[in-house]
Amino acid sequence: MYKLVLIRHGESTWNLENRFTGWTDVDLTPTGVSQAIAAGRLLRDEGWDFDLCFTSVLKRAIHTLWYVLDEMDRTWLPVVKDWRLNERHYGALQGLNKADMVRQYGEQQVLQWRRSYDVPPPALTPDDPRGQRHDRRYAHLAPEQIPLTECLKDTVARVVPYWNEAIAPAIRSGQRVLISAHGNSIRALIKHLDGISDADIVNLNIPNGVPLVYEFDAALRPLRRYYLGDAAAAEAAAAAVARQGSA
Amino acid sequence: MYKLVLIRHGESTWNLENRFTGWTDVDLTPTGVSQAIAAGRLLRDEGWDFDLCFTSVLKRAIHTLWYVLDEMDRTWLPVVKDWRLNERHYGALQGLNKADMVRQYGEQQVLQWRRSYDVPPPALTPDDPRGQRHDRRYAHLAPEQIPLTECLKDTVARVVPYWNEAIAPAIRSGQRVLISAHGNSIRALIKHLDGISDADIVNLNIPNGVPLVYEFDAALRPLRRYYLGDAAAAEAAAAAVARQGSA
Repeated sequence: MYKLVLIRHGESTWNLENRFTGWTDVDLTPTGVSQAIAAGRLLRDEGWDFDLCFTSVLKRAIHTLWYVLDEMDRTWLPVVKDWRLNERHYGALQGLNKADMVRQYGEQQVLQWRRSYDVPPPALTPDDPRGQRHDRRYAHLAPEQIPLTECLKDTVARVVPYWNEAIAPAIRSGQRVLISAHGNSIRALIKHLDGISDADIVNLNIPNGVPLVYEFDAALRPLRRYYLGDAAAAEAAAAAVARQGSA
Repeated sequence: MYKLVLIRHGESTWNLENRFTGWTDVDLTPTGVSQAIAAGRLLRDEGWDFDLCFTSVLKRAIHTLWYVLDEMDRTWLPVVKDWRLNERHYGALQGLNKADMVRQYGEQQVLQWRRSYDVPPPALTPDDPRGQRHDRRYAHLAPEQIPLTECLKDTVARVVPYWNEAIAPAIRSGQRVLISAHGNSIRALIKHLDGISDADIVNLNIPNGVPLVYEFDAALRPLRRYYLGDAAAAEAAAAAVARQGSA
């Protein structure tokens, strides 16, 4: 039997400011740092250990992983950083306040942008300074690989191949894997692993900084999925995520 | 022409306590953190950038690299951690105070342990709790690959193959490389690159937290070697390292 631990980064500055973040590279808040440290302590105290870590190329996930590894005294573990674990790209909404958008466009429109499976928010223009076409960390990609916006379906379309090519083989080879990622890249993975429908996946909310465990059988089919630590606290944190779209 | 930047970790707790450290995994002091941050700012302000980073599996070098990458806003860069960049193993001296050893064994003996090219300090026994035979980070190595002591010659014998197999090919492929390592693993590399004699290399002292630049020709032959920033400060820091063996 295999196990995998996923963790959504701790609270970011734009989580706190209630702004659409996407690929914008904002950092953790002090609360986010505390969440990451608490996650690391929880993993350490419950006797978890890892052989290989994956994260995105966004610092809120990287820093979360660093704090976790520090608490576990595992800074020396190999870490693979890949853009395919990035948050969903939020297009022209990146940087805008969620409540402002509700007031401007109405709750239904914002809910569709946030929770529709296959309708992306308005796209950035390729030269928008909020975009990533001139960001060196994506320079190895073809321009058309660097999104100008994404719906969750688009995020699934990059996360799942990365799972199949890089992460699943590592787990099958017996390595204990830890992934530090984002609300929507984790959601994309859960949709794939648990076969959740397009309609249902958008209602699944991932709390910040709470380790999420998968247990798999020998064929890497999921047997169980559960949060570590205080289950009620994880539920409350997920509910808070769900409320972010309100004005 | 190629460039390479090397950096010795910032001051560690055992640098401060004047203890032989070797493979003991001690962390940075607040001064060491400041040195690492200053190095990152210097690299950023002078317009340096990198494609690939190497470090040891010891947290004083890993944390130094993390602080540098934070200051440069380059946390997303790939980082390869390898034991062959570790500090020289200090055998049975690990944990002992350098001045105590001078009082106990005399200045000449301690100077030989610290500065002889090919005479290692007394070895740890394989089951000494100060050793690494039961440390999971070295579990992929054969027991005889995990040193019980090392002279600088032994360190050269593991650093140079790693340079040839992993680092030099990356530089030749056009990647701009940053290495965060240790006094003796950097010394081993300098000996190899600049063809310094066994007698002379032991007198070369590497200051903590000061970026050291190599410029190479197309055949990876060194053209220049220089510290970034305040040259006089780097000299003073290196001289302080040299004095650590005094009672």
